[in-house]
Amino acid sequence: MRKAPAMHRAVIHLNDAAPEKIQTVLHNTANLLAALGPEIQVEMVAHGPGIAVATTPAPEELTTELTGLLAAGVSLCACRNTMTARRLTPADIHPQAVVVASGVAHLVTRQTEGWSYLHP
Amino acid sequence: MRKAPAMHRAVIHLNDAAPEKIQTVLHNTANLLAALGPEIQVEMVAHGPGIAVATTPAPEELTTELTGLLAAGVSLCACRNTMTARRLTPADIHPQAVVVASGVAHLVTRQTEGWSYLHP
Amino acid sequence: MRKAPAMHRAVIHLNDAAPEKIQTVLHNTANLLAALGPEIQVEMVAHGPGIAVATTPAPEELTTELTGLLAAGVSLCACRNTMTARRLTPADIHPQAVVVASGVAHLVTRQTEGWSYLHP
Repeated sequence: MRKAPAMHRAVIHLNDAAPEKIQTVLHNTANLLAALGPEIQVEMVAHGPGIAVATTPAPEELTTELTGLLAAGVSLCACRNTMTARRLTPADIHPQAVVVASGVAHLVTRQTEGWSYLHP
Repeated sequence: MRKAPAMHRAVIHLNDAAPEKIQTVLHNTANLLAALGPEIQVEMVAHGPGIAVATTPAPEELTTELTGLLAAGVSLCACRNTMTARRLTPADIHPQAVVVASGVAHLVTRQTEGWSYLHP
Repeated sequence: MRKAPAMHRAVIHLNDAAPEKIQTVLHNTANLLAALGPEIQVEMVAHGPGIAVATTPAPEELTTELTGLLAAGVSLCACRNTMTARRLTPADIHPQAVVVASGVAHLVTRQTEGWSYLHP
């Protein structure tokens, strides 16, 4: 459990299903952690077509990098609105993902709280 | 008229003319209102090719959802720079749209004022 | 040297190599300066494929507008992670570009400091 807020906090907007785009996001996120280390807290927020990154089984080429990021403390948020629209159940979603009511609302409320925003 | 600032305020960056992209933006905005209700104030900022959403007549498949959002209090901002570059007059622009001098400058100044930013 | 922070500060995220996208970014940035004049400080942050805007020689059709922006005080930041991955040396990078350790980390830290963010 984090005791104090990190110096930097960032939400990353993931609304694209293309594996090469998701790969880029995961790679950028790894670079972010490498650059800012314990000073940054990151949430990847997947909604719309971007929910692909949070469905199981994830595309094979993404699994290794995603697993590494989750182990490093990155959060993966899945949009419940998207799950409902696509008839996805919790069983379809990565077991470590956190389900949020609305991906876009989460992106907005985090920024209200002072988080930075990245759209890859 | 709003008496106090909403708890959350968001500008949505619309610079794409593709109807399916605009449809996504309108749909995301509706989800944002559904999730945060009266606690959020939203402005869609259309510039460049994105000005398409604010021109009349709007593509038919978009009109219903756009009308609903405007009725729910969402603002639609149209970039005057773009209007000038495309020789659009106020008569070409949605009657409920608010013309701003520069779409990108509006997106920046709103963030300076504490608004969140979304790029769909 | 700037003595006081500008009223508005913005980072512009450049991660696309397509010349028409870069052209749009440069054009939007020029509009931003025209609208907000001395009240705005702008950094274009190039990483991933977007590093193209900062490599020399830049695509010819971009050079004039880029030169004008740099002369007007806009900063061009190039991501060292991207340079390493693409085996680019400082000699390959625009002489006025500022090399930052990580483009995405720079985009996040600037927002922590209160800068606005634009993804074109």
